[in-house]
Amino acid sequence: MTAKFIVIEGLEGAGKSTAMQACQQFLADKAIDFVQTREPGGTPLAEALRDLIKQQHEENIAPETELMLMYAARMQLLHNVITPALSQGKWVLGDRHDMSSQAYQGGGRGLSQETLAALSDIVLKGLKPDLTLYLDIRPEVGLARAKGRGELDRIEREALSFFERTRERYLTLANANEQCVVINAEQSIECVHQDIVAALHTFYLSVKA
Amino acid sequence: MTAKFIVIEGLEGAGKSTAMQACQQFLADKAIDFVQTREPGGTPLAEALRDLIKQQHEENIAPETELMLMYAARMQLLHNVITPALSQGKWVLGDRHDMSSQAYQGGGRGLSQETLAALSDIVLKGLKPDLTLYLDIRPEVGLARAKGRGELDRIEREALSFFERTRERYLTLANANEQCVVINAEQSIECVHQDIVAALHTFYLSVKA
Ligand SMILES: Nc1ncnc2c1ncn2[C@@H]1O[C@H](COP(=O)(O)OP(=O)(O)O)[C@@H](O)[C@H]1O
Ligand SMILES: Nc1ncnc2c1ncn2[C@@H]1O[C@H](COP(=O)(O)OP(=O)(O)O)[C@@H](O)[C@H]1O
Ligand SMILES: [Mg+2]
Ligand SMILES: [Mg+2]
Repeated sequence: MTAKFIVIEGLEGAGKSTAMQACQQFLADKAIDFVQTREPGGTPLAEALRDLIKQQHEENIAPETELMLMYAARMQLLHNVITPALSQGKWVLGDRHDMSSQAYQGGGRGLSQETLAALSDIVLKGLKPDLTLYLDIRPEVGLARAKGRGELDRIEREALSFFERTRERYLTLANANEQCVVINAEQSIECVHQDIVAALHTFYLSVKA
Repeated sequence: MTAKFIVIEGLEGAGKSTAMQACQQFLADKAIDFVQTREPGGTPLAEALRDLIKQQHEENIAPETELMLMYAARMQLLHNVITPALSQGKWVLGDRHDMSSQAYQGGGRGLSQETLAALSDIVLKGLKPDLTLYLDIRPEVGLARAKGRGELDRIEREALSFFERTRERYLTLANANEQCVVINAEQSIECVHQDIVAALHTFYLSVKA
C-alpha cells in the first residue's frame, strides 16, 4: 500500500482541528506511520508567511497577493515536507490544503478559475489528496465556535457574505470530487467523530484491497 | 503628457542606485513630479517579503516560491503605489521591476517561460515600463563592486554561473524590447552618467512631442 494523503477541509470553527485528532487516532490504531501538516504553514518560511497572511495590515492586501502567499507557503510545504514524507512511505494528514485556496480566494475573494488554475498548476504539478473530508457548516455557526477561541485574525474578520461564497464554492468542489466526503459538521462532536471514522474506514478498506 | 514609468535594471553592483540619482536629478530639472520605488519592496508587506527573500533560510527555497514572493511584493507595490501614482500624474522611477524576475528567476533559476508568463499576466495585467535602462555588466565586475557594500544576501551568494545565465537573459530581453536602452555599466561613473542622461533626454523629447 503506497502512502496516502488525507486532507481535512472546512470553514473556521467547522471542527478541523478536532477531526485531525480522530484521524490521528485512526492511523495510530492501524499502525500507519504519518506526518501531520497545517496550511498555510509547516516550514519556517511557510509559518512566517502564515503570520503575514493572518496579520492585520495597514495597507490593502490584494486578493492576488493573498493567493500568491498561500501558494508560496504550499510550495515550501510540498517540497520540504509532503513530497518527502510520501516518498518515504509516510501518510500525510493535512489540516487544509489546496481546496482552501479554491474556496477562499476563488469563491470568497472572487479570483478567476484561470488565475487559480495557473497557480495550482505551477505548485501542485498534479498532486491531489487521496481523500478529502470536507466538514460542512453554515458560516454563522462555525464563526460562533471560532470566536470562543479568542481574537479573530484578518481573514476571520471578513463579512458573513465572504464565508457564504466560500462555503458555496467548497460544496461545488466537494460534490465534483469523487475523493471527497462531505460531513455535516453541525452535528454533535460525537456524531461528527463517527462520520469521520466511518469515512476513514471505507477509504482504508478501498486502498488496502 | 501622461505620467511615465521608468525602470533601472541590471545585476548587483551594476550601478542602479547610482543611476537612480541621475534620473532623479533629470526629472527634478524638468520639474516633473515623481515617486521612487525599489523592488522587491516599497510597501510594509512588500518590504517584509523582501526580507524573507533576501534572508538565509535553513530550508531549501524552491524557485517557484521565490518567484511567487517576488510577484506578491510586486502586486502590493503596483496596487498601492505605482498605479495610484501614475493615475495622479506622477512619474514612477523604479529600481528594478518585472525584468528582474524574468532574468533572475527565469534565466538564473531556470523557471519556464510559461510559469513566468502566468505570474506576470496575473500581476501586471499588461502594464509595461515606458522606458527601461538596462545597465549591462559582467557579473564578476558587478559582484566585486557589490562586495564593497558589505555582507552578501542569499541571492548575491549564488554561483557566478547563476549570474551569467541571469545576464544572458537580461540581454535577450533588452534586445527584444524597443523601450529598453542598454548601457555599458563597466565604464567610469561619469561615462555611465552621460549615457543615462542622453537616454533620458531622447526619451523625454519623444514623449513631450
Ligand atoms: N461538532 C461540534 N459541535 C460543537 N462544537 C464543536 C464541534 N466540533 C468542534 N467544536 C468546537 O468548536 C471550536 C472550533 O473547533 P476546531 O476543531 O478548532 O475548528 P477548526 O479547526 O475547523 O477551526 C472548538 O472549541 C471545538 O471544541
Ligand atoms: N560605473 C561605475 N564604476 C565604478 N564603480 C561604480 C560605478 N557605478 C557604481 N559604482 C559603485 O559600485 C557600487 C555599487 O553601485 P550601486 O549603484 O549600489 O549598484 P546597484 O544598485 O546596481 O547594486 C557602489 O559602491 C558604487 O559607488
Ligand atoms: Mg483548526
Ligand atoms: Mg542598488
